[in-house]
Amino acid sequence: MARLIEELKKLPGIGSKSAQRLAFHILRSSDDDAEALAGAVRDVKAKLRLCSVCNNITDVDPCVYCSSATRNQRLVCVVEEPTNIAAIEKTKHFNGVYHVLHGSISPLNGVGPEQLRISSLVRRVENGNIDEVILATNPTVEGEATATYLSGQLRRTGLKITRIAMGIPVGSDIEYTDEITMLKAMEGRREL
Amino acid sequence: MARLIEELKKLPGIGSKSAQRLAFHILRSSDDDAEALAGAVRDVKAKLRLCSVCNNITDVDPCVYCSSATRNQRLVCVVEEPTNIAAIEKTKHFNGVYHVLHGSISPLNGVGPEQLRISSLVRRVENGNIDEVILATNPTVEGEATATYLSGQLRRTGLKITRIAMGIPVGSDIEYTDEITMLKAMEGRREL
Repeated sequence: MARLIEELKKLPGIGSKSAQRLAFHILRSSDDDAEALAGAVRDVKAKLRLCSVCNNITDVDPCVYCSSATRNQRLVCVVEEPTNIAAIEKTKHFNGVYHVLHGSISPLNGVGPEQLRISSLVRRVENGNIDEVILATNPTVEGEATATYLSGQLRRTGLKITRIAMGIPVGSDIEYTDEITMLKAMEGRREL
Repeated sequence: MARLIEELKKLPGIGSKSAQRLAFHILRSSDDDAEALAGAVRDVKAKLRLCSVCNNITDVDPCVYCSSATRNQRLVCVVEEPTNIAAIEKTKHFNGVYHVLHGSISPLNGVGPEQLRISSLVRRVENGNIDEVILATNPTVEGEATATYLSGQLRRTGLKITRIAMGIPVGSDIEYTDEITMLKAMEGRREL
């Protein structure tokens, strides 16, 4: 019991009290439930790996996006983290594939381009039949630096490189918009 | 004293307690300060009016933007409220002039196009030498409806009509972006 509590405490956001409560819940639950949890924990490490094409976390290689016949394999959306894919999938309007960098360029944290999955993206673009690369890194300093670096690396391939729009979020008010976002919204205005 | 407290209570966000505190502060302040406050309250109604060109609140007519020789009078930015001008001015990169609608189309609240300063905008566009109209209404249902209506009204003039960018605010994270904003950010992507 003490060992289980100790192990649970290592999880983020779980303190002594929570770990104890979780441990007692597991103790009281059925043998099947406990076995399912133990199996799921073991499997996540054993079975999940990175997709050899896009570096997304997956249990089949290539991942569901890269192996899909209904998705546009010529449209690649570059994101920082696997979780960003969920945010883009939620729009239900993107039908291309992804490339996960697993981070962004951040010299202050010692993360340079060579620590990210950039060379595999460049190879993929050079080899594959790709029409457009969408740079969907975050609109932060690191994400912008990464997008700028990538556009420099990919420019010589001559294909279409786009950056997602920065601007005022839908449902928001101009009055409460910070000046840099307002500036980007003005710069990024589109003809109707 | 009771009359002053009653009058102060009419201000938004000022209750009995606050009104009393303000009244006592005025009582204790110098004659000059009290007179300055009284004069400022009187003047705001007597001297401020709407600019005859852009409907901005101003004490000189035409307003500082419309009468400026250094601003581009051929670039008009349409906003819902006079306060929105401050948000755009803060970017320090917009050098055109404004047109204030004093609201947005909202059928649920009984506000139709005829309640807004739209006819004066159409006249201004038809008469004046204008190159571009930027529709900077809010990215809300009402603001979008107003932008769509305006672009329909102005399209026949044949000039450039643009809409400010909707997208992810600068410094924000894709993971925390709602799906409609994410969709707009993808749709509004720009070539690098």
